[in-house]
Amino acid sequence: MSVIEVPAGSPFGLENLPYGVFSTAGTGQRVGVRLGDTVIDLAALLSGDAPGDHEDGEDHEDGGNSDNSVFAAPTLNPFLAQGPARWAAVRRRVSELLAGDVPDAACHPVDEVTAHLPVRVGDFVDFYASEHHASNVGQIFRPSAPPLMPNWKHLPVAYHGRAGTVVVSGTDIVRPRGQRGPRGEDTPAYGPSLRLDIEAELGFVIGAGSRLGDRVGVDEFDEHVFGAVLVNDWSARDLQDWESRPLGPHQGKSFATSVSPWVVPMAALRAARVPLPAQVPEPLPYLRGRAAGWEPWGLDVDLVVDWNGATVSRPAARELYWSPAQLLAHLTANGASIRTGDLFASGTVSGPERGQRACLLELTWNGTEPITVNGERRTFLLDGDRVTIYATAPGPDGTRVGFGDVTGTILPARP
Amino acid sequence: MSVIEVPAGSPFGLENLPYGVFSTAGTGQRVGVRLGDTVIDLAALLSGDAPGDHEDGEDHEDGGNSDNSVFAAPTLNPFLAQGPARWAAVRRRVSELLAGDVPDAACHPVDEVTAHLPVRVGDFVDFYASEHHASNVGQIFRPSAPPLMPNWKHLPVAYHGRAGTVVVSGTDIVRPRGQRGPRGEDTPAYGPSLRLDIEAELGFVIGAGSRLGDRVGVDEFDEHVFGAVLVNDWSARDLQDWESRPLGPHQGKSFATSVSPWVVPMAALRAARVPLPAQVPEPLPYLRGRAAGWEPWGLDVDLVVDWNGATVSRPAARELYWSPAQLLAHLTANGASIRTGDLFASGTVSGPERGQRACLLELTWNGTEPITVNGERRTFLLDGDRVTIYATAPGPDGTRVGFGDVTGTILPARP
Repeated sequence: MSVIEVPAGSPFGLENLPYGVFSTAGTGQRVGVRLGDTVIDLAALLSGDAPGDHEDGEDHEDGGNSDNSVFAAPTLNPFLAQGPARWAAVRRRVSELLAGDVPDAACHPVDEVTAHLPVRVGDFVDFYASEHHASNVGQIFRPSAPPLMPNWKHLPVAYHGRAGTVVVSGTDIVRPRGQRGPRGEDTPAYGPSLRLDIEAELGFVIGAGSRLGDRVGVDEFDEHVFGAVLVNDWSARDLQDWESRPLGPHQGKSFATSVSPWVVPMAALRAARVPLPAQVPEPLPYLRGRAAGWEPWGLDVDLVVDWNGATVSRPAARELYWSPAQLLAHLTANGASIRTGDLFASGTVSGPERGQRACLLELTWNGTEPITVNGERRTFLLDGDRVTIYATAPGPDGTRVGFGDVTGTILPARP
Repeated sequence: MSVIEVPAGSPFGLENLPYGVFSTAGTGQRVGVRLGDTVIDLAALLSGDAPGDHEDGEDHEDGGNSDNSVFAAPTLNPFLAQGPARWAAVRRRVSELLAGDVPDAACHPVDEVTAHLPVRVGDFVDFYASEHHASNVGQIFRPSAPPLMPNWKHLPVAYHGRAGTVVVSGTDIVRPRGQRGPRGEDTPAYGPSLRLDIEAELGFVIGAGSRLGDRVGVDEFDEHVFGAVLVNDWSARDLQDWESRPLGPHQGKSFATSVSPWVVPMAALRAARVPLPAQVPEPLPYLRGRAAGWEPWGLDVDLVVDWNGATVSRPAARELYWSPAQLLAHLTANGASIRTGDLFASGTVSGPERGQRACLLELTWNGTEPITVNGERRTFLLDGDRVTIYATAPGPDGTRVGFGDVTGTILPARP
C-alpha cells in the first residue's frame, strides 16, 4: 500500500480522475482511472467493496446498481450503462480511496500500459459548431456567397460519421486512397489522398441512453452525457470535395477518427463551464433550456495542436457557437434515440484568430498560404508526419484538468 | 416429428430459407429460419448435431467453427461472425434437415412469433445508386441545372445513416419533429414534419468484417456479405431540405429506418443475378472486378410498395446503376473497415417509369402531382397511414424467393 504521487502541476490530479481502458502484459482489457502518471485498475481497487456497500449504509443514490464487475470489462460501456447516480457514487468512492493508501497491485505506470478505445462506439455524429470554422470553410469554397449557409445560425448542422473506424490515440493512420475530382484532365482519378488534413475537436460520450421517440432537452444533458474526449477527425479534403454533393462527406472522413484514451467525466469539468457567445437570432425554444434558472453554458477547454512537435494552433472551445447541450438537444429533437457509447463531437474548434484555426484547410487557406513548421513550408500532411492534440480546462481552486493526448502518425498509402 | 408443409407458390420454399430473430411467449430472442409459414428454431433443430459433426466425418470446410450456441443468441451477429464457409455448411445442413421430418417443438407458426431486429447494426451506410432516383431528385430541386451531379456516374454517392434507430418491420413510426426552413415568414419553425416520405430500398448485411486499411474488391463481395433485406428509409423532406447544406441529411432521416425481419442469404439470390445496366463512362478500375472471368452483376428483385393496402409503386432493383459489389468496394476503397452486422443499402430503388418510383417525393413530384390512393388524392404521409414494402426475386427452377414485408404505421408526433 502506498500513496500515489502526483507530479506538481499535473492536470491529472484528484479533481480530474478520467476513465479509460488499458491492458498490461499480464491482463486483458479492463477499466482504469488515471491519477498523475499512474493508472489505477478499478476492479482491483474496488475489490474490497461488496456490491451494495455504501459508506453510510443507507444512501442508495446509485439505485442499488453497484456491480463492480463492470470494471473488468473490455470497454467502459457496462459502467456507463449503470447511469448518472452510479457515476457520481463511483467518482466519490474512487476519490476517497485514491486520497489514501492504494494497493500497489492496482497501480501501473501510465507509460507501461497499453491504452485501448475506451468505449464501443454506437453512433458517431459530428457537428459543425464553430462559427469561425464554418465561415472560413464557406469563404474558401464559396468565395462569392455569404460565408455561412442560411441554416447555420438556426440549427447545429451535423452528419453521421463512421463509428467502426473510431480508433484510440496512437493508432497509425494509413493515408487513404480514394477518388479525386477532375482537375485539368477530364476524368477523376483514384489514388492516395493529396490533401490529408486534421480536425481538432471536442467529443462527448453518451452514458445513459434514451428511448426512440423521446427527446433530450438542453437541461437534461447531465443525465445522459458521461464525459468528454479529444477527437481528431482526419479528413481527406480532395476525396471530400468531389464526393460530398449532395449527401455530405463520406469516404473523405470514414477511414479513421482518433480519440484520446481518457474520458474526462463531465463532473470534472464543472469549473470549466462558461457563458456561451451571444446567439443571434435567439435559437428556437427546443434549443433553449426549459428548467427554471437554467443558463446555457460552453466549455473553457484550451486545445493545442502540435505538428511534428511544433505547436501550430491553439483552438479554444469557449469560442464554439453552439453549446454541447444544444448539440445533444438537436441530435434528439426528431425523436432519434441515443445509446450508451454513442459519441458526438463539436466539429473543428476554430477560434477567431489565425493561430486558433483547428484544421490545415483553414491554417493554410486550402494550401494557398503555407505555414512554417520546424523551418519547412507546409500545407497538408506528408507521410511520416505526426499530429498530437492535447488540452486542459480550469478545475476547482485554480487547478487544471487535462485531456489525454490524441496522436497519430501518417503511414504511406497501401500499394 | 412431421414434414413442414409449404403452401403452393410460397416464396419461402426450401430454395430461400431466410434467417431472422424471433421470440415466443415461452422463449427469449433466438435465431430462426423461415420455411413456408413456419419459423424453425435453429438451436432446437440442430441440437442433435455435436460441435464439429460433419456428414462425411472429414470435410471441415467450415473451418471447424461449428458452435451451434450462436443460434440461441438474441441477434444473428455471432452466427454471421463465423464466416462464409460456416454459412454455407449451415445452409446445406438446414436444407437437408428441413426436407425431412422436423421435431414439432422446433416449429412455430410465423404469425405466432414476435420478430426482432435480426442484427445488431454496426454502421449503416445508405447509397444513392439509382440513376432514375438521383436524376428525378435533381430535376425537382435543381430544375435549371443538369439532373445528375458531376460525380454521380464516377462513384456511388453515399452517406452514413443512424445505426441506433434501425428498427424491425412492424415498429410504429412516430412522426418526427424538427426544424423547417423559412417559407414566406422569415424564421424557421420547429414542429411535426409536414412532408413525411418513404424510400424503398434493398439493404445488405455484412457477415464477415475486414481490417482497417484493407479494401474489399468487387469480386470479394461473397466473402463478406451474408444476405439482403428490404429497407424503408423514412425521410422527413422538410427537415432534410433545410438542414442538408453542406453536410447532407441528418435529422431528416435519423429518426427511424425500418428493415424486413428476414435476412435472405446471398446464396438464395444466385439465380437473381442479372447483368448491370451499361455504365458509361467505364468506372475506375477499383470499381471493376480483378478476378479472371468475373462479370458485374445486379439483382433482379421486384419490389412492391403498398400505401394503405393500395399498390403505388413497383420498383425493380435490376434498374440500379451501381451494383451491390461496387457499393461495398467503394465503401471500403479508402481503407474503412467493415464489421459483422454493418448494413449498407442501395438508396431509393426508382426505375425509369413513373410507376417504378420508390418514394413519394418522386411519385408526387414533391407534392405538386398528387396520386390517387384508395380514391383519395395524396402527396405525403398522414398520421395513421401504413406503408408496406415486399419483394420477390427469381429462385432456381422457376421458383420465387421472397423477402419478408417491411411495414410501418405513422403515429402522430408526440406532444
